[in-house]
Amino acid sequence: MRGIVLFAHGARDPEWAAPFQRIAARLREARPNLRVQLAFLELMQPALADAVAGMAAEGITHITLVPLFLAQGGHLKEDLPRLLDDVRRRYPSVTIHVTQAIGDSAVLTAAIADWALAQHLSFTA
Amino acid sequence: MRGIVLFAHGARDPEWAAPFQRIAARLREARPNLRVQLAFLELMQPALADAVAGMAAEGITHITLVPLFLAQGGHLKEDLPRLLDDVRRRYPSVTIHVTQAIGDSAVLTAAIADWALAQHLSFTA
Repeated sequence: MRGIVLFAHGARDPEWAAPFQRIAARLREARPNLRVQLAFLELMQPALADAVAGMAAEGITHITLVPLFLAQGGHLKEDLPRLLDDVRRRYPSVTIHVTQAIGDSAVLTAAIADWALAQHLSFTA
Repeated sequence: MRGIVLFAHGARDPEWAAPFQRIAARLREARPNLRVQLAFLELMQPALADAVAGMAAEGITHITLVPLFLAQGGHLKEDLPRLLDDVRRRYPSVTIHVTQAIGDSAVLTAAIADWALAQHLSFTA
C-alpha cells in the first residue's frame, strides 16, 4: 500500500492550513484509493513522525513525501533530513521518497508568475 | 508608471531565493516594460519599505503587491498590514494593491495537487 504525505511548515493561525487541506482534498478526489495525509514541521499536528506512524500501522509501505514549501532552505535541507533519519529508523518497513519543493518545478513557478501577472492586470484594467 | 512587488518571506540560505527570482524573471520576460521587484519580510534584502522607496523614486505610482506565501497566517494578516501602513504613510503618492496569497487561488492549489500526484506516480511507475 502506498500513500502521500503533504509536508507543510505549520502556523499558529488555524486558517493557515486551509490551502493545504484543499490540496489534500483534490488528491483524494483524483485518487480515492490513495492514502493522503498532511503533516507539519511545527505549530500544527500531526508531526511527520506521527503521520508516518499512522500510515505504517495501516500497512503502508511506500510514502511519497511532498514538501509543500515554495523554496529549499534550512527547513528542507536540515530539519527534514533529520526528521526523515528518525522515521526511517523507527519504521524500516516504510520506503519514503521525497520530491522537490514547489518552487523547484518550472511548471509551478511559471503558473505562479502567470497568476501574479493576471492579478496585476485585473487591478490596472 | 506601474510595478509589481513580489513579497516573499526570506531565509538565511541564499539559494532559497532562486524560485522567487525565476518567477520575477518570467514576469519581466512577459512584460519587459513592467517594473518587477522582489522584497522580503526578513533575512533577505530589500525589505518592503526599501523596495517601495526605490520604485517611488523612479516615479512609479501604482504597485501590485503579490504575497508569495502559500497561505495566510500571521505574516500576511499582521506583519504585512503593519509594513503597508508604514510605506503608505511615507509614500502617499504610491497606490498599493495587495493580491491574495498563492494558496487562495483555486487554479494554483489544483496545479500543486496535480504536480504532487505526478511526482508520486513517477516513483510508483
